[in-house]
Amino acid sequence: MSLARVQFFSVSLDGFGTGEGLSLEAPFGHAGDRLHEWMFLTRWWRTLVGEPGGSLGIDDTFLRLHGPGVGAEIMGAGKYGYPGWHEDPDWKGWWGPSPPFHTPVFVLTHHPRPPIEMEGGTTFHFLDASPAEALATAREAAGGQDVRIGGGVRTIRAFLEARLIDHLHIAVVPILLGRGERLWDGMEGLEQDYEIESTTSPSGVTHVMFTRAGI
Amino acid sequence: MSLARVQFFSVSLDGFGTGEGLSLEAPFGHAGDRLHEWMFLTRWWRTLVGEPGGSLGIDDTFLRLHGPGVGAEIMGAGKYGYPGWHEDPDWKGWWGPSPPFHTPVFVLTHHPRPPIEMEGGTTFHFLDASPAEALATAREAAGGQDVRIGGGVRTIRAFLEARLIDHLHIAVVPILLGRGERLWDGMEGLEQDYEIESTTSPSGVTHVMFTRAGI
Repeated sequence: MSLARVQFFSVSLDGFGTGEGLSLEAPFGHAGDRLHEWMFLTRWWRTLVGEPGGSLGIDDTFLRLHGPGVGAEIMGAGKYGYPGWHEDPDWKGWWGPSPPFHTPVFVLTHHPRPPIEMEGGTTFHFLDASPAEALATAREAAGGQDVRIGGGVRTIRAFLEARLIDHLHIAVVPILLGRGERLWDGMEGLEQDYEIESTTSPSGVTHVMFTRAGI
Repeated sequence: MSLARVQFFSVSLDGFGTGEGLSLEAPFGHAGDRLHEWMFLTRWWRTLVGEPGGSLGIDDTFLRLHGPGVGAEIMGAGKYGYPGWHEDPDWKGWWGPSPPFHTPVFVLTHHPRPPIEMEGGTTFHFLDASPAEALATAREAAGGQDVRIGGGVRTIRAFLEARLIDHLHIAVVPILLGRGERLWDGMEGLEQDYEIESTTSPSGVTHVMFTRAGI
C-alpha cells in the first residue's frame, strides 16, 4: 500500500512550522535554524553535508527513513523557493545541483514551468493542481512506494483538510516562536481519525506520530 | 527556596488549556473531560474520588506531587468558578465541602469577598492584586514551601509574563481542540529563561517541564 506521509516535519511548541519574514536570506524567517538544529546533530545530516560525527540515536533513526520506501515527494511553492521565486527563471530550489530527494518531486504552484532534471535522480515537476490531483500524479510516479508530503505548513494543512494524509510525523521542538505559520489551525478533532504515539528524544524534541486508523 | 510552580497543567497539542463555551455545566467548554482523562486513569485520582484501581506509572508519580512541598495555591477567578460566580454569594468552588488543596488558596478576582474556610485545611482567600503582590502574600502563607500557580490559562500567562514562574510543568495531550484559550500566545522566546525536559507517558501525554535557569 502506497501511503501519503509527512516525515519529521518540525514545529515549535506553540505550533509554528516556520517563522515570520521569509526571504531568500531567511528561508524560515525569524525562526532561523532553530526548528532544525536537532537534525544537524545527527549522523544522517552530517553525512549529507560531508561532515564527520553526529548522533546515531532516535533522531537519526527517524531521519534515515527520508529515502527508503519513498518514491515521490509533493511540496508547496513555499518549500521550493523564497517568496517570488517564480519570477526567477533560473531558480532550481534551495538544494544545489544534487538535491537530497532522488525521486520525482512535484512542486505545487500557480506558475508552472517545464520539468527540471537535477543530479542524483531528483526531477522537479511543476503542477497547478488540487491536493487530490497532485497525489494521484505523484502516486503514479512513485511506482507503488510512498509519497512524502514535504511541506511547508500550508501544503500539509491543505492535505490534512482534504483527509489525504495516512501518516503524519511531527517533531515538536521545545522553543516558542510566537509568530509565523501555524500547523494546527483549523484542525479541531483531527485526532479522531488517527492513532497517536509520541516519543521524546534526548535532543529535546518530541516525535508525535499520527497513523490513520485502519491502514 | 520557595518556588512558584505550575504542576501538570494540561493543554492540547494545539496549545489550548481550556475550550470554548465555559459554563457551570461545562467547566472546560467544548473540551469536556478530554484534557484531563489521563489523570482519571491514575491511582492518585481514583483514590481521591474513592474508586479502586488506577495506574501507578509516570502520570501517577507526577500527580502525587500535588500535595507534598506545596504550602499555598494561587488560582484565577476562572479556575475557581463559572463565568458569573461572583454574583452568587453561596459559591464555594467546584470541589465540594473538602477541596483537594489542604492549604490556603488565593483566588484572584476583581470582586473580593471574605475568606471561606473549607474542610480538610483549604481556606479560600480572595485577592484583587497583581501577580507579584499575590505571590508575596501566598509565599508568606506557604511557610517556606512552594506556591502552586493553579491556573487557568490566563492566570498562568499573567505570571509567565511577569517572569514569576520558577517551574512550569505542562502536560501536552494529543488532541486538537481548535478553539478556546491558548497558553502559548505572546510567549516568544520563553525557552531562553529555562532548561526544558520532556518525557512521554504510555497514556499518550507528553510532560514538558521548564525549570528556570539558575534556581
